[in-house]
Amino acid sequence: MSDAATFTPPGGLAAGAGRTTADGLTALFRPRAIAVLGASGRVGNPFARPLTYLVEHGFAGDVYPVNPGYQTLGGLTCYPSLDDLPGEVDLVLMLVSAPEVVRLLPAVAKAGAKAAVVFASGFAETGPDGQALQDELVRLARHHGVRLLGPNCQGLVAVHDHVVASFTAALELGVPEPGNIAYIGQSGAVGGSIFSLARERGLRIGTWASTGNQADLGATEIANHLVEDPRIEVLTMYLESPVPGAEFDRLTARAAELGKSVLVLRSALSRSGARAATSHTGAIIGDDAAFTAMCRERGVVQADDVEDFIATAHALSVLPRSGGNRLGIITTSGGAGSLAADQAEARGMTVDDLTEPVQRRLAEVVPDFGAVTNPVDVTAQMFKANETDGFIAVCDELLADPTVDSVLVVLTMVTGDLATSMAHGLCGLWARATKPVVVVWLAARQQTDVAREILRANGMPVYDSPRTGVGVLHALATAAPRGPRPLVQPSTSDISVVDVLGGLHGGVLTEHEGAEVLAALGISRPAERLVDSANRAADAARALGGPLVLKIQSPEVPHKTERGGVRLGVGAEEAATVYHDLVRRFEAEGAIDVLVQEQVGEGPELLVGITNTEPGFPPLLTVGMGGVTTELYKDTTTRLAPVDATVAKEMVLELKAAPLLTGFRGRPGCALDAAAEAIARLSRLAVLVGDRLVELEVNPLRLVDAGERAIALDFLLRLGGAPHPTEETTT
Amino acid sequence: MSDAATFTPPGGLAAGAGRTTADGLTALFRPRAIAVLGASGRVGNPFARPLTYLVEHGFAGDVYPVNPGYQTLGGLTCYPSLDDLPGEVDLVLMLVSAPEVVRLLPAVAKAGAKAAVVFASGFAETGPDGQALQDELVRLARHHGVRLLGPNCQGLVAVHDHVVASFTAALELGVPEPGNIAYIGQSGAVGGSIFSLARERGLRIGTWASTGNQADLGATEIANHLVEDPRIEVLTMYLESPVPGAEFDRLTARAAELGKSVLVLRSALSRSGARAATSHTGAIIGDDAAFTAMCRERGVVQADDVEDFIATAHALSVLPRSGGNRLGIITTSGGAGSLAADQAEARGMTVDDLTEPVQRRLAEVVPDFGAVTNPVDVTAQMFKANETDGFIAVCDELLADPTVDSVLVVLTMVTGDLATSMAHGLCGLWARATKPVVVVWLAARQQTDVAREILRANGMPVYDSPRTGVGVLHALATAAPRGPRPLVQPSTSDISVVDVLGGLHGGVLTEHEGAEVLAALGISRPAERLVDSANRAADAARALGGPLVLKIQSPEVPHKTERGGVRLGVGAEEAATVYHDLVRRFEAEGAIDVLVQEQVGEGPELLVGITNTEPGFPPLLTVGMGGVTTELYKDTTTRLAPVDATVAKEMVLELKAAPLLTGFRGRPGCALDAAAEAIARLSRLAVLVGDRLVELEVNPLRLVDAGERAIALDFLLRLGGAPHPTEETTT
Repeated sequence: MSDAATFTPPGGLAAGAGRTTADGLTALFRPRAIAVLGASGRVGNPFARPLTYLVEHGFAGDVYPVNPGYQTLGGLTCYPSLDDLPGEVDLVLMLVSAPEVVRLLPAVAKAGAKAAVVFASGFAETGPDGQALQDELVRLARHHGVRLLGPNCQGLVAVHDHVVASFTAALELGVPEPGNIAYIGQSGAVGGSIFSLARERGLRIGTWASTGNQADLGATEIANHLVEDPRIEVLTMYLESPVPGAEFDRLTARAAELGKSVLVLRSALSRSGARAATSHTGAIIGDDAAFTAMCRERGVVQADDVEDFIATAHALSVLPRSGGNRLGIITTSGGAGSLAADQAEARGMTVDDLTEPVQRRLAEVVPDFGAVTNPVDVTAQMFKANETDGFIAVCDELLADPTVDSVLVVLTMVTGDLATSMAHGLCGLWARATKPVVVVWLAARQQTDVAREILRANGMPVYDSPRTGVGVLHALATAAPRGPRPLVQPSTSDISVVDVLGGLHGGVLTEHEGAEVLAALGISRPAERLVDSANRAADAARALGGPLVLKIQSPEVPHKTERGGVRLGVGAEEAATVYHDLVRRFEAEGAIDVLVQEQVGEGPELLVGITNTEPGFPPLLTVGMGGVTTELYKDTTTRLAPVDATVAKEMVLELKAAPLLTGFRGRPGCALDAAAEAIARLSRLAVLVGDRLVELEVNPLRLVDAGERAIALDFLLRLGGAPHPTEETTT
Repeated sequence: MSDAATFTPPGGLAAGAGRTTADGLTALFRPRAIAVLGASGRVGNPFARPLTYLVEHGFAGDVYPVNPGYQTLGGLTCYPSLDDLPGEVDLVLMLVSAPEVVRLLPAVAKAGAKAAVVFASGFAETGPDGQALQDELVRLARHHGVRLLGPNCQGLVAVHDHVVASFTAALELGVPEPGNIAYIGQSGAVGGSIFSLARERGLRIGTWASTGNQADLGATEIANHLVEDPRIEVLTMYLESPVPGAEFDRLTARAAELGKSVLVLRSALSRSGARAATSHTGAIIGDDAAFTAMCRERGVVQADDVEDFIATAHALSVLPRSGGNRLGIITTSGGAGSLAADQAEARGMTVDDLTEPVQRRLAEVVPDFGAVTNPVDVTAQMFKANETDGFIAVCDELLADPTVDSVLVVLTMVTGDLATSMAHGLCGLWARATKPVVVVWLAARQQTDVAREILRANGMPVYDSPRTGVGVLHALATAAPRGPRPLVQPSTSDISVVDVLGGLHGGVLTEHEGAEVLAALGISRPAERLVDSANRAADAARALGGPLVLKIQSPEVPHKTERGGVRLGVGAEEAATVYHDLVRRFEAEGAIDVLVQEQVGEGPELLVGITNTEPGFPPLLTVGMGGVTTELYKDTTTRLAPVDATVAKEMVLELKAAPLLTGFRGRPGCALDAAAEAIARLSRLAVLVGDRLVELEVNPLRLVDAGERAIALDFLLRLGGAPHPTEETTT
């Protein structure tokens, strides 16, 4: 418990005996005294469990059961109501029905509690009436300064501090050893399953919380609290509703700063999955591109299945992170090594030849039938003397190879005494390894039980399949610490851009207004003049020289191409006639402005789009190939805005169709720097526009003159509201 | 054993006491007497195991240990050599070194054996010397009429017939109960692991064989033997080398005919995976598109990981096949249901609303907090009375819904007595269900041990994660019985096509030769004339009318476009001049033939390619979008040739870019029937060309006149050898 003394939660006082007040989250996870409202004395009743657990598992503070039906419960004095408690409490566990929860909340505050756990269902998940009840509960809680976990949740377990405030059946086997993993998730059932399975597999959970309907405290806010706990190093989250962006941003930045891992399992992503979750806690995820972009940027690991989630959490909690995706495989079977290598390559990891000195040393110990390349196949011959020192020495050699980031050990039928020897050898290896070593053991538990118990006692994971082993190593590389998001420096053009934006009203900009914005940003547009008469059109055409493009300009005509408002390949001498044609076509809309524009050269085209998709997240920048390819092949890549030109170029090169730009089948490549610079500036624009941004799109951004110039051929900016609401005009 | 009497292996005599001779494969799997050559009496020596196992597990025939060092072994008389045996044997287990195997093979034959198992390594897997020794072994075996399993293998176990001819450590726990699963694979280590893990998970294996280097008998030939065994219903194979096409064709056709399942796990598909397998058994898979196409056509299930392989084998062995991918999910947790539904949709399965009457009946039993759509969420409330009848009734309702093909049950913390009740309920459900029911149970074994033992005793699988459960149901739909490959009827044009082909030499056809072939097939080409002078070019141009395409014609100029041998947009009056230009450009090649061709209208383009990729497999037909898209986005689809027009159309519609053809963003769609007919005829051509086919490609096949016409703009046919080798000419 020496670590505990150093734990100062954000915004609260240090936990411990000396505290006089506690903030809500500290009251929840490290209370000094707890009241159990509605504690039951009936055997088998889930509501009897929290009290029993608190008493049995050595919670150090006072525990007050509250139930008018009992004099004592679990050997403790039982009080008829919260008003009768002999001392103040930090936390109340509310084991009463939904209406009673609302009725008794003021009494909770009066008892001194800064936090309450609401187990009851019957709130927002049941429909409009329940939602109203939940709203009232939240109102009361805010009014009285009580933070809520739930409702419709299964509570929490803070193992280090012996706070067992849950009735999850995962605790039937008792409270496990404390560890460095925190689990936070909405679904109590999924949380209980993960708790139960994690424990069976030897994971050590330090803190566990089910957030249920998240009427007040959400999983991300709780994670932000727990990330500061020095006893917690791996934050695992099950999320079935949209994540608050700003909180998730803070969490992942702070975790990266502290070198801690964040692992998420999401559900409700599909149509029917969302339906299942909707009826359950009343929330769906849907599109989560910004969330995913943030995860990728911050090294947050995303699992998509319960098994992966548990396997990955285990690895993150006990193994060092991996410096990269270069895998060394050592196996007792060429076939098993081959399966593992296939899995690794499918995930984009590499299984390359070992360095020459390592191969030479391996050749001295590995039998002839084996292989000293990679995968290293030692064959069963290596164990003839029934000992594993040689095998472990090979593992050490692999780990010492500077071209290997992590090592996968794939054991087949290594059983009985040999297995036991292997387990001891592996424990020694883990103790000295500074790179991750992951073990896949393809033999029945019954034939390896002693060995597995040794590994388990040492907290080490053993995986059941090459796929899981490879997946875990991939996650250890994903979660590798990376610096904070590179700051995109404000540009000198920012002031003029802000100036232009300040003059704009809400809605879709006209192309000419857009041109002003692009000019301020320093992004190329076709040379052009806005004209309002046939004569001026003719003048402009002579000045620009043909061939030209003429486009009708009116906020009333947004889809001008489809409506015949754009004319291509116009010769300078035809300009006046075409002007007349266009204005006549749109006379119903009263348009008289026409843009006379240089028709630029051919070249590959990109799409650049920026949207505010998810509340609280930075804008999402999408880059794709222009034309139908983006839509049919989903050939796009995303980042959070803003990005600098280096990242922008990286994005373009990530596209499957990048060879069309960089050179392909004898076609020349083109310089991408101009495109990257334009993308970076557009992403900066999104930041300058801020909350007013609805949609920003350049489609296409055409690369002409072998990519030396990137020209925004079409630009859409849709703004919400006016910059100064009091100055709204009626135009 | 009553089934056994009905088992007549193909080409052999009925097994059993009355037999007088046996074919090789029957001798291997159902021998009447066995000699164990090189049996060891040393405890712990793997070579001691086969004899022990044979004796302990009740092999009914005679067993003769052969080792000059012992008088008796395992309670049996031991003979100094194979020449001293008191009676004939069908099978010899050769537990001697590689050179001894070769030296003693004649004695094996002399002892009456029609089969031998060669365990020794030191053959092809070690290099050229070992390969030579293996070649000599095979020569001797063929000469003496002995079939070989191995070398470098771990033998076989035929559980039904008590033939335990292996030293795999998977047998340390004894020989399991016999079942309906056969396992055949090269790697003895992987095979042992799968045997061990399968047994732990409750699968029942009837026959197991490790084929090692496959010098004589390969996995597919063995599978062809075992598919006839009425006691075997699921053939599972681990394959790390190329599969002989004709044998695999026969196997999968026969399995489909008999309603049996085939499940394969492949390795050595990646570069490093192949390297691992190469050093191991000397074979790699590499490209396997034809294999994969055949698997898809025949409902062969492909697993890509050991865990999936075992999970799927289990389901195939005990559950009915699924009629489709419409999934009903029932769960004790909305969150877990959501995870399962996400997995299902990601796999292309559907989780749709249940039919109205079923929903109505469910609403009567499912608590208010739950959901009666799909996933059905019963919530923990359903178990208040600690019984599971209501839950099982809901499962029955789901199964009865005609829009549900299979049911996934996802249990969370259903533990203890409730779990036991659930297990009994599920066993009842399985007994009466005619659709597959798969159970995922997310709770520790320790909390569900009695329940799991009940399920295990009934042979039923329980899976650990939604992904595995969904994957297994997907496999049960994949493996659904389908008819034999639809026969593509010979066409009336076949005779004229064969006639044209008969006149062609090997190599690449000239475009004009190709045109003759296409004409015979009835596939449209641009209107054209072959000319050999400027005057004739001018005549042809006048007859065809402009604009025209002129192309140089010479077998010496295969890449004519890149070399400037094609001129587009030629007016009728320019034809003579362009003819001169072209001929002058290629005068080094002596070309004087030029094709004058109609320049056809614009339209979407397809690529149609046919190759003979893998020996023994039918030609592989590939259809993709024309142009760079196919290459960058790998937007292609494949089938085995030939196909009819219906399948050809299905292929086109499978392309990601199909909307470009069928209508997209306001563009008109086009009729695909002409394209489908052309594809079908080309696939028929591949069959008519037969073994001479090296490569056949139409790229592009352009759809003009809104798809009413499909025109082969470029046609490549490369033939091997001449049709009549004696008539080769020197041109």
